[in-house]
Amino acid sequence: MNAHVPAQGYIPEIIPEHDREVRRRAGLGQRGGFGQRVAVIVIDMCRYTVEEHSPLSCGELGWTACHAIGRLLDVARPRGIPIIYSTQRTAEPYSDATGGRLLSKAIPEDSAFATELWPHEIIGEVAPQPGDVVIVKPKPSFFFGTQLASILIHKRIDTVIITGTTTSGCVRATVDDAAALNFRVIVPQEAVADRYSLSHQVTLFDIDSWLGDVMPLDEVIAHLETVSQDRAG
Amino acid sequence: MNAHVPAQGYIPEIIPEHDREVRRRAGLGQRGGFGQRVAVIVIDMCRYTVEEHSPLSCGELGWTACHAIGRLLDVARPRGIPIIYSTQRTAEPYSDATGGRLLSKAIPEDSAFATELWPHEIIGEVAPQPGDVVIVKPKPSFFFGTQLASILIHKRIDTVIITGTTTSGCVRATVDDAAALNFRVIVPQEAVADRYSLSHQVTLFDIDSWLGDVMPLDEVIAHLETVSQDRAG
Amino acid sequence: MNAHVPAQGYIPEIIPEHDREVRRRAGLGQRGGFGQRVAVIVIDMCRYTVEEHSPLSCGELGWTACHAIGRLLDVARPRGIPIIYSTQRTAEPYSDATGGRLLSKAIPEDSAFATELWPHEIIGEVAPQPGDVVIVKPKPSFFFGTQLASILIHKRIDTVIITGTTTSGCVRATVDDAAALNFRVIVPQEAVADRYSLSHQVTLFDIDSWLGDVMPLDEVIAHLETVSQDRAG
Amino acid sequence: MNAHVPAQGYIPEIIPEHDREVRRRAGLGQRGGFGQRVAVIVIDMCRYTVEEHSPLSCGELGWTACHAIGRLLDVARPRGIPIIYSTQRTAEPYSDATGGRLLSKAIPEDSAFATELWPHEIIGEVAPQPGDVVIVKPKPSFFFGTQLASILIHKRIDTVIITGTTTSGCVRATVDDAAALNFRVIVPQEAVADRYSLSHQVTLFDIDSWLGDVMPLDEVIAHLETVSQDRAG
Repeated sequence: MNAHVPAQGYIPEIIPEHDREVRRRAGLGQRGGFGQRVAVIVIDMCRYTVEEHSPLSCGELGWTACHAIGRLLDVARPRGIPIIYSTQRTAEPYSDATGGRLLSKAIPEDSAFATELWPHEIIGEVAPQPGDVVIVKPKPSFFFGTQLASILIHKRIDTVIITGTTTSGCVRATVDDAAALNFRVIVPQEAVADRYSLSHQVTLFDIDSWLGDVMPLDEVIAHLETVSQDRAG
Repeated sequence: MNAHVPAQGYIPEIIPEHDREVRRRAGLGQRGGFGQRVAVIVIDMCRYTVEEHSPLSCGELGWTACHAIGRLLDVARPRGIPIIYSTQRTAEPYSDATGGRLLSKAIPEDSAFATELWPHEIIGEVAPQPGDVVIVKPKPSFFFGTQLASILIHKRIDTVIITGTTTSGCVRATVDDAAALNFRVIVPQEAVADRYSLSHQVTLFDIDSWLGDVMPLDEVIAHLETVSQDRAG
Repeated sequence: MNAHVPAQGYIPEIIPEHDREVRRRAGLGQRGGFGQRVAVIVIDMCRYTVEEHSPLSCGELGWTACHAIGRLLDVARPRGIPIIYSTQRTAEPYSDATGGRLLSKAIPEDSAFATELWPHEIIGEVAPQPGDVVIVKPKPSFFFGTQLASILIHKRIDTVIITGTTTSGCVRATVDDAAALNFRVIVPQEAVADRYSLSHQVTLFDIDSWLGDVMPLDEVIAHLETVSQDRAG
Repeated sequence: MNAHVPAQGYIPEIIPEHDREVRRRAGLGQRGGFGQRVAVIVIDMCRYTVEEHSPLSCGELGWTACHAIGRLLDVARPRGIPIIYSTQRTAEPYSDATGGRLLSKAIPEDSAFATELWPHEIIGEVAPQPGDVVIVKPKPSFFFGTQLASILIHKRIDTVIITGTTTSGCVRATVDDAAALNFRVIVPQEAVADRYSLSHQVTLFDIDSWLGDVMPLDEVIAHLETVSQDRAG
């Protein structure tokens, strides 16, 4: 069933020897591999997480992810692979839809989130195309409070390629839920970004240990090039 | 509503200056504080995550957490604060109850998980007492595939103190879900443990940035000493 | 805790004696009562479920519910009781957001749902006001694929008064989820409507048996008149 | 994709002409059909819902369902179709695991549920076999608070055949969740039972209107006889 199972897991250089040895000893970090039907998930590639003038920008990592996602989508779209974007709300016709808190901790009055209207639209470089799905998600995990699981089940997807921002935030929470639901998880390492440099690398190590396969974009693309799916599910 | 709001967030020494500056600039890491009704969550304080002979042991951090949780429970129990433990299954009368995978990535035949019967019972030092709740959870997040949310709602809890193992695994996934559900999250920094030393510290930084308050056990205990709850909810 | 516990459950006249006897013998149909903090839920009071020209109209029952909900909201709003509306999507910028199916069974090409653009806006008689919350829900239960649970937890609600359309469809599914989450459920019998006359009555009997209290609107209003809540939660 | 799509929906004789006309006019009650991979769900076929001495027995309908489920399982097992049972808890080592309420409304002290230890084991006539899955569920829907969705996703199931007790209770709640997740739902009409005679029939009408296909057991078995699945998923 696993058309593509690389021999080696993902261990960033910054991981200390103690933690590498724990992983070896426990037998963690094995490959899970691709299943039979794939979808691409693009999380929060919004202007405020990418553009440099935003205090929540992911900086250079954001643009690297943007470029990587663009390459991935170019391969996925003509093969009928579903592409599903999340964004955050662009406007609030009625108050209090997140329960009074943008994030779960109360954001103070003078924070970046609270004092400015952040541009939540998806950046043009990876803009959705007709046939793609775009969903506004209320919380970090793309599965929480959305119909994402229903869409994947309807399309008989068993493997999700998860991309976007931020690695240690919404990407991590989405990976957790995807793995809990028993979807196979693939994270192309260049296609996720974070504003925290250390959290970015450690989260990829944690994901690769037991939740999903972190692998080079080129390997993911090589696999997708062998795929042809009936988009209708 | 916030009886206890310390002035400073939690930033481990290992966090690089770049990431500290990002956090400052974005206004993240503010305190959320306690709400009105608290529960203590104890995640997977099982023999296999604590005892040294297990390849999945958290080593010294595990015993530190054990001691810290013991102190916390001694304060919580006489005050009517609900205490809810997770564990993992001890025996499988019927096969395949996790969907054929112990974790979400296929665990190989010769891994520690697959070849031995790990002792999943909760270690004696923090053993459940009559009136506590113990739930077998199938996946990392204590909320996933369990009735934990229902129990907390029934008891009108608005704040969860989350402890146990592992910081970057089941604790992190549980914090994500608790925060998404708009429970206030408190993590006493000595009361969680991980087998990965770096993941442990970085996860606490990530949680404190925007999901919950990471704070010294003594401060958590000082707050609980002011609390008296009707356990019946 | 139960400020208002009427002596008698709800049993429509159409229920046969056999079923009444089963209920008595099993001890079902007891009152659950109100808790301490209430919210009002208004489900799908859209033009297409109410207005007579729609093939999905609830007819006279729909207008009765509309009037009843109006009375309920007039009492709830000045008392700081949260009011949360669902509607269905009004426009689809990108296809397939429900997984390709408006309902779970494939709706045929020539059905009312598929061939016309139904007016999903909430009817003017019970229109949302500033401070209310309006959420687009993708599936029958208001809890499924939405942040409703998070909103209720944030506001420390323990009791939901559930109204709207249709009794045997979205109302029933929402009652099931509310009850599973351990929210106390109150259904004012005049404030729900269905296009099926028999399903309407039998669903109220089923709900009252074990999921929530079905009671006259006047009794619900009498209780709310004793309530004053801090809306901020 | 729909190997078996019967021409006619299910409308019990008791349904009044008004409701039949509404269904026709709205274009509801169309067939959804089977998908590509099927699982059989057996809900709460416990002694207390079947055996006559129990006040919660489904009487004759219970034994009819038992016989129908037995026939269904005899066809499903040799074809590698997964069979997943729910039951309710048999013993409580720690109190309060359902949040203090067996059902969502407070069950009084002297009710049948509270005063006796009901036999929750599955009745022998449809007892689980090696390779089947048995899960204790805390609430009416088999999906709520369990890993059922994860199991179905792991096995790449797109169609669930839902059987057991009670039609208007746990079966209905499970059908709602299955349909919301976009699984195709099939209910063999002889294989579900209820203690309320009218609720049983009306629930089948409601399910068939828009949530799933209610059809004769013989038609379901005829379809399964064309199926051969790799159980491993």
